[in-house]
Order: sequence, then C-alpha cells, then structure tokens
Amino acid sequence: MSASRNQQIILSRRPTGLPTEEDFAVHQAPIPVAGPAQVLVRTLMVSIEPAMRGWVLDAPNYLPPVPVGSPMRSFGIGEIITSGIEDYRPGDLVVGFTGWQEWATLDTSQIQRRIDPDVAPISTALGVLGLTGLTAYVGMLEIGRPQPGSTVVVTSAAGAVGSTAGQLAALRGARVVGVAGSDEKCRQCVDYFGFDSAVNYRDESNLAEAIRRRCPDGVDVLFDSVGGTTLDAILENINVGARVAICGTMSLPPDGRAVGPRIERRLLVRRVSMQGFLATDHFDRFDRIVGEMAEWLRQDKVRYLEDIASELTDAPSALVRLLGSRNRGKSLVRVGLREGDRT
Amino acid sequence: MSASRNQQIILSRRPTGLPTEEDFAVHQAPIPVAGPAQVLVRTLMVSIEPAMRGWVLDAPNYLPPVPVGSPMRSFGIGEIITSGIEDYRPGDLVVGFTGWQEWATLDTSQIQRRIDPDVAPISTALGVLGLTGLTAYVGMLEIGRPQPGSTVVVTSAAGAVGSTAGQLAALRGARVVGVAGSDEKCRQCVDYFGFDSAVNYRDESNLAEAIRRRCPDGVDVLFDSVGGTTLDAILENINVGARVAICGTMSLPPDGRAVGPRIERRLLVRRVSMQGFLATDHFDRFDRIVGEMAEWLRQDKVRYLEDIASELTDAPSALVRLLGSRNRGKSLVRVGLREGDRT
Repeated sequence: MSASRNQQIILSRRPTGLPTEEDFAVHQAPIPVAGPAQVLVRTLMVSIEPAMRGWVLDAPNYLPPVPVGSPMRSFGIGEIITSGIEDYRPGDLVVGFTGWQEWATLDTSQIQRRIDPDVAPISTALGVLGLTGLTAYVGMLEIGRPQPGSTVVVTSAAGAVGSTAGQLAALRGARVVGVAGSDEKCRQCVDYFGFDSAVNYRDESNLAEAIRRRCPDGVDVLFDSVGGTTLDAILENINVGARVAICGTMSLPPDGRAVGPRIERRLLVRRVSMQGFLATDHFDRFDRIVGEMAEWLRQDKVRYLEDIASELTDAPSALVRLLGSRNRGKSLVRVGLREGDRT
Repeated sequence: MSASRNQQIILSRRPTGLPTEEDFAVHQAPIPVAGPAQVLVRTLMVSIEPAMRGWVLDAPNYLPPVPVGSPMRSFGIGEIITSGIEDYRPGDLVVGFTGWQEWATLDTSQIQRRIDPDVAPISTALGVLGLTGLTAYVGMLEIGRPQPGSTVVVTSAAGAVGSTAGQLAALRGARVVGVAGSDEKCRQCVDYFGFDSAVNYRDESNLAEAIRRRCPDGVDVLFDSVGGTTLDAILENINVGARVAICGTMSLPPDGRAVGPRIERRLLVRRVSMQGFLATDHFDRFDRIVGEMAEWLRQDKVRYLEDIASELTDAPSALVRLLGSRNRGKSLVRVGLREGDRT
C-alpha cells in the first residue's frame, strides 16, 4: 500500500458469465476527501459475497450493475479518519459500502452500522454478526420458522450463511440436513456445525432420492441458496405446509433465463410458501438480531469459520474461489494495515 | 328421478387429459341406508369445480383420485332425511361431499357445515358463501393482503373465485386488474364486478406488455388460478415485496410435468412471496369468514353470478363447459326435486 495513494481494485470489463480475475484491475487513485456529510475511512477488511456474481453483470438485479472502471462494490470495515457526520467520530469502526479500496468516503446511506470491537473479533461484523448472520436469521427463523422436530434442509450448507442457518434451525430443535459439494464440507457440517446429516450432491446421481433417504418424513423447511436442479430435487420431498426461503440462486445464470420444471402446481398441491428475501431489507432489526447472535456465539451455540486473504489484491482471486465453492468459511480480505500495526 | 333408486353419475373411465362427457355414465344404485354415525341426505344441488380436473386423474394431488366406477366426488347441498348424528336433524340443510348422486350417506368428516336458508339463497352455500368465498377470502385477504392503492391482478377474473377475489381487493381500496378469456368476460369484470380494468389474454400477443400497460406501477398482489405462461407474464411486472397467492393451475397439465422459465431468481430479486393454498385447510375460520361475506352481500359490496344446470345428468357437460371456460358464474347443477316441490 502506498501512503498517499488509494489502491483500488476496479471492475475493468463486464463479465459475461462467472467473473474471472482478468475482469478486475489494480488502480491507483488519489485519497478522496470527505464532503460535508461524509466520513473518510481507511478500509481494514472487505467481504467477498456470492451476490457479487450478480452485481457485476448487466442484468436485472436488486442493485444497479457495478460500473466498469469503478472500484468493485463491497461491504467492508472501515476506521473513520475524518468525520463530517455528527454521530461518527474519528476512530470509530463502521461497516459500510467501502468497495475494494484502501480509502473510501461514505455518507450515512452507505454506512450500515458501527462496530463494538469488544464484543467479538471485528471480522465477525462482516460475517456471523453482520449480513451473514442477519441473512441466516431472517431466512431461517423469520421465513423458515422451524419447529422442534421439523426436518430442515439447507443448501450451500458449509458456506457462511448456510452453516449459520443450519445451526439456528438446530437451536430451535429441528433435524437439520445439509447439502454441500464435497465430502469434506459434509463432514464439516456434521462434525463442526452440528448438522444431523449432510449430502454431497456431487456424489448423487439422484439427488431427490438421496434427500428422501435423509428426510424420510419429508422436508418442512428449506433454506436455499442455489436454486435450479438442487431446488427441484428438494421440492420433490417437500411437505404440506412447508416454507422455502430463497436466499440465493447460485447455480443459475444471473440473467434469469434458466428453464426448468414449473413449480406452481407443487406449491399449490403441497400448500407451500416460497419467499425470496434480502437481508438488506431487514436492517431495522439488525441490532436486536446481532445481539441475539452475539449471545449464541458467547455460549458456543453458534460457530463460524473464516477464510481470510491477506492483501487487497487477493480480492479477485478470493471471489473466483468463492464462486467455485473452494472457500472454507466466510470469505474476507484484509486491507491495508494489520491489526497489530494499528497503534 | 326414480322414487326408489339412487341415480348417480359415475366416473366410468380414467381420463388422460381434460375429462369429456364420455368419461362419465349414469348409474342406478339402491338408495343407501345411513349407518349409526351417518346422515342420509337427499341431494338438492351439486357444485362443479375446476379442481375436478385434477380429482379424476391418477396424478399426485391433495386428495386421492376418484375411483373408476364410483360416483364423481363433489360438494353438494343435501337435505337430511334420517340422522344418526346427534347434532343433525331431519330437515337440516348441509354442505358436504355428496358426490354426483341423488342420495348420499355422510359421516361428520364428509359434512362441511349446516346452512341457514334465511341468510341467502341456499345455492350461495356452494359459492360466494361457501368454498368459493372462502377461497377468495383466504387467498386475497390473508395471503395477498392488498393495501389501499395497491395494484392487484386476478386471473380467471370472471370466474366464481376470481370475481369474488377481485371484489374483495377493491373493498380494501386496491386497483384491480382482471385477466380473462373473452371481451364479454372482461366487460363483466368491469361493469358488473367493478374491476378497474381487464385484459383479454386471447387478444394479446404480448401479455406481459399488456399487463404493464394496465399496471404502470407494477403488480403488488397476484391472485392466480391458471399458472403457466400467464403467471410468467404477470411475474415480469411483479413489484418488490409482492405477494402471489396460487389458487389453481388450470392452464397446466395436472401431472405436474410442465416446463417453463425458472422463477426462483425473480422471487429473490423482487423479494416476492408465493404461496399455494387450499381453502379446505381453513375451515376453522369458515363461519367467521362466511359471516363477513354475507354482510358484504347484503350491502351489495360483493356480487355473484350463477350458472345453474337443471338435471343431475347435466353435470358432465357442465364440467366440460367449465373446463372450457364457457360457464358464466359459479357452476352448479340442480338435483332431484325443485325448490318449489319441497312441500
């Protein structure tokens, strides 16, 4: 990092499918100056998210596409250096839309929340005590609503969101079955995250049948981040009155043009409720939910894993690893000074 | 009708697609004798339902298929002749699973409710004050939950359920757009049922665009009874946070094998909740809901149309007309004695 420049990773061209490292470039910009209603932050860490696959495409989404030539959009943790916003002071740590860059100016709409570094390692503010935790909580506890004895299926089960969602279902007394992409991830689901069982979908020629074997009483709640044929296979086992939380559609092309079996008749016959959701719609309850999650962390009722790259320039490869399902735990990239350097 | 025989319309063979009149036959059986925990009823009227298309097929459904050789399953109104159930007395009028036959024995699980003939014409107990009304109420007011100013789309809009659902949305202050299959039905939606607008889907080469013209602010609530490409076209206009009540899938083959665009990404990006439902799951609130509906009827806030055939032997042709969308209003068949004959 340069002392007087702002290193950025910009989107250098528009990907047509999954982004590659070549779609990004290192760029040196001047350190920005905060406007009157902004803070200037030095970025400490940025988050790598499955949703980034959609953010870089020119396809209908819940946010406009990241412009080519701009720093990649990203949540990050920043330390406030100068503040033009009354509620924030230099030294405060905040989560916000820093982007993949060493320095960022943020207005209040771009700041998500302040972090208390005494509660837990600050990295958790981008994970289990951040959007990851909020996503798992809203999708599982508010939409999925598992009951004691319910059978719950979670896809991307070893991922940051899925592993948290499954643990929350277990906390409610449900039987939790994970779907993941390797035997190692399946073992992690059971041994580390406490799932009752896990299915390696790559090993199964008939996933619907494999789900049926693990869920002999059918599926009451599905927390799904992949969509497509995996969703189809689980819906074949869905129970009357079941709830499906659609958290992501990672197996589908983000242009929305995939074709598959129509599900409306199954939703009708089984009286299933299927709901798409984004954690960012639920910030109004963030503090309360993070408070609950922090308590469960302290009691070791919820665990997490992190996969932290050490340089901002690692961000594109970290994203490619995540989208190839090769990360292990919440994917993060350290930026700028190390924790130990901050004196 | 014979004085000492029970005329029945039986399912004489298993249809492979839409049922035809040739799939049914007239059959004379002995008048049944009620068992100790049954009532014997004389059927006064039976109901013709879109759901019958699924009931006669050997495909997964919420009820087992009607056996070949048995009277067609049907809701009907019966007058109790003899009763072995303490709560019911001869002369009581009940709605229940009479089937297409002049006489039926019913146990309590087959009786839906008692009718008060002083509230409204008894035929309404099979329509707007019966399952039709319950379906419209649950789907629109409990699942769709339109707000004042919401844009609501209803398919099969001139049908018994759709026309009622649309009126309930209008009662809540929503803008209501119907989708129906003829100009005459569209006029009926607007002129008789008070919809704001209606689209004849047969006239539109691009239904999504036609919906967009009628719903320039997008669609907040969809009450859908058809599924398939009509559902797709409306989902193209669905708003963030919208609610979709899946009431039927009349345009789809009931074997569930239809293919179409995958919707999970749209549900996610627009944060849509889509819920299949069956009115029969909601009998616990039937009396309260019918009470509200009856009050709206009295105040002429909710209107209905009926399409009544005059003989039990007309039931198969009435069903074929309904499934061909050629009925006008709630499809019913009078059975046995006329109202005026009941002295």
